[in-house]
Amino acid sequence: MWAQAEIELRPRPRGFHLITDEVVRGLGELERVGVGVLHLHILHTSASLALNENASADVRADLESWFNEAVREDAPYWRHTLEGRDDMPAHVKAVLIGPSLTVPVAAGSLRLGTWQGVYLCEHRDRGGPRRLVLTLNGE
Amino acid sequence: MWAQAEIELRPRPRGFHLITDEVVRGLGELERVGVGVLHLHILHTSASLALNENASADVRADLESWFNEAVREDAPYWRHTLEGRDDMPAHVKAVLIGPSLTVPVAAGSLRLGTWQGVYLCEHRDRGGPRRLVLTLNGE
Amino acid sequence: MWAQAEIELRPRPRGFHLITDEVVRGLGELERVGVGVLHLHILHTSASLALNENASADVRADLESWFNEAVREDAPYWRHTLEGRDDMPAHVKAVLIGPSLTVPVAAGSLRLGTWQGVYLCEHRDRGGPRRLVLTLNGE
Repeated sequence: MWAQAEIELRPRPRGFHLITDEVVRGLGELERVGVGVLHLHILHTSASLALNENASADVRADLESWFNEAVREDAPYWRHTLEGRDDMPAHVKAVLIGPSLTVPVAAGSLRLGTWQGVYLCEHRDRGGPRRLVLTLNGE
Repeated sequence: MWAQAEIELRPRPRGFHLITDEVVRGLGELERVGVGVLHLHILHTSASLALNENASADVRADLESWFNEAVREDAPYWRHTLEGRDDMPAHVKAVLIGPSLTVPVAAGSLRLGTWQGVYLCEHRDRGGPRRLVLTLNGE
Repeated sequence: MWAQAEIELRPRPRGFHLITDEVVRGLGELERVGVGVLHLHILHTSASLALNENASADVRADLESWFNEAVREDAPYWRHTLEGRDDMPAHVKAVLIGPSLTVPVAAGSLRLGTWQGVYLCEHRDRGGPRRLVLTLNGE
């Protein structure tokens, strides 16, 4: 079976945010899949999706710190600066982390590790609402 | 339905290149899929695939600048240097960006965001032609 | 057809390790798939999966060197330090590389490039055994 849905995530501040529950609620068909995969895709180029620690908020804060140091807003070689200082670094971070995740589905649930959760990685200062396409395939 | 094809991309200079149209032309079956996913896989270890801004060429140039600064050709710890100064940095960049993309398909087309396009990320100075495997699955 | 299995990888030292053979052995159904994809997912947040050079061990050593320099254990901004100096850098590396791979399957085998192999990227000093979910879909 196939199912596809689009969901809109409310605006978040710049940083890493847990969205596992919103994703799971986005596709009611999930509970009818015994084995399959769920594909999550973000329709933007300055935000991304990751899978990491679902408990400690410090991990999410530290990820933001590392990415801000690694991709500096004041790099002297940026040409693409018209949309603000945070824009080109956001594109680089989005390429590094990636626009999509594929997650195994087993027995009607995401088959994640105990400590794994889905992150929206918001790389803009004011990214606004973000749209995801969820595509479920399984049997 | 399943369809699979291999396509060869002509040699590109080192950098980030938009290839969305070539990918879409590579699989005629795409237009017959109502809902599904397209998987793109590059058969190489020193080039990669990304999804990002499809309009401004400056974004692609800035990505090349950032990756060149982040993964330096003259790092003192490289051991794998026999194939040239650009080779080991190319492997690191390929691991960071990744060898494949999965893109949602809806109503016979790639379901991409308005500003999203597929990039060939060529990390070698003279990488030559690059081969992709396209695997389409849907209904 | 769908098949899903979980495998446990024996503990490896910190670094990049070739595991292609273990993955292929993990799913006997692979040889019955003419066209499809294999999804590999690691159930942890401080190790990751990559696809890169399968011959030179120097490439794997150089990857470890680069990631250690890029994500330093002594960064002054780490808050998440209770689980050891190697823990938060491991989360960053896992986000950069990613928890999963999707690999094309053709004629009963993984359709990889000549030089491509699957890596377990162990980012902890003593990560212990690591569990993978393998999900195969094809016809």
